[in-house]
Amino acid sequence: MEDIKKLILKLHDEDAVKFGEFKLKSGLLSPIYFDLRVIVSYPELLREVPRLLHERTEEAEVKFDCVCGVPYTALPLATIICADHNHPMLIRRKEAKDYGMMVEGVIKAGDVCLIVEDVVTSGSSVLETARLLEKEGLKVKDAVVLLDY
Amino acid sequence: MEDIKKLILKLHDEDAVKFGEFKLKSGLLSPIYFDLRVIVSYPELLREVPRLLHERTEEAEVKFDCVCGVPYTALPLATIICADHNHPMLIRRKEAKDYGMMVEGVIKAGDVCLIVEDVVTSGSSVLETARLLEKEGLKVKDAVVLLDY
Repeated sequence: MEDIKKLILKLHDEDAVKFGEFKLKSGLLSPIYFDLRVIVSYPELLREVPRLLHERTEEAEVKFDCVCGVPYTALPLATIICADHNHPMLIRRKEAKDYGMMVEGVIKAGDVCLIVEDVVTSGSSVLETARLLEKEGLKVKDAVVLLDY
Repeated sequence: MEDIKKLILKLHDEDAVKFGEFKLKSGLLSPIYFDLRVIVSYPELLREVPRLLHERTEEAEVKFDCVCGVPYTALPLATIICADHNHPMLIRRKEAKDYGMMVEGVIKAGDVCLIVEDVVTSGSSVLETARLLEKEGLKVKDAVVLLDY
C-alpha cells in the first residue's frame, strides 16, 4: 500500500494525474484523469509499475504460463514482467496485417495467459483481448490492471 | 561476435530461421527468412537481444536522449534497453487514434532519439519512424537494428 501511494505521488509529479471533467472511453464522466502513457518516459516508473503488477499476481496467487499486454501502454509493462520473471510473452496487435494475425509470439494451445492492462473503465479492451487469445486456443483466467476507474 | 553467433544459433533452435524462397517486404527474394517475432516468447532472447543492441550503440559511441521502438517486435526491445539503461522511451503507434497522436510518451523537442528496429530490408519503416519523430520536433541521427537483409 505504501508503494502504491508513492507511485501515485510520482505519477502526479510527472503530470499523469489531471483534475477537471473528463469523458472516459466508456462514456462515463470522471473528475480525475490518469494519463498513464507517460510511464514509459520515466525509467523508474517503467520498472516500478511492472514490479507492483507482478507483486499483485503473487499476492493473489495467480497462476499463468504466459503474459499478454494490451497495446500500447501495457506492452512495455508486460515486457518487463516477462523479462524479469522469465515468462513467455505474447503481443496483441492493435490491427491485423494482411494475413490476419492478431497475436504475435509462440502460441501454445491450452496455456493459461495473464492479461496485463494499464487502465480499465468498462473492461472492454481486456475482454476483447481475452476473446482474441481464446480464439487462438489459450485460456484466460486473470488480468492484472494498474488502474480501475 | 561470439555473442552474435550464439544468438543466431539460439534463434535457429527456436525456429526463427527458415530456409527456402521468401519475398521480403521490399519485394526482394531471399533464400533465408528470420521470424524475429518469436523473440518475445523466450525470456532469454528477450533479455539478450536488447543487451546486444545496446552494446552496439556503445561500441559505435552513439549518443541519444531517448529511444523509440518501431512496432511491434522492436517495442519490447526498446523497452528493455530503456529500463536497463535509464532512458526515456517513446512509443510509435502503428495507427493513429482519433486525435491523431502517432508518438506516445513525453516528447522533448530537440532531444536526440535513437530508433530501435528488429529487421530492415529497404529501411522504409525506420525512415517512416524517423520522419514521424522529426515532425514532433525530435532529432534522429541513428537507428540500431538486429538484422539487415
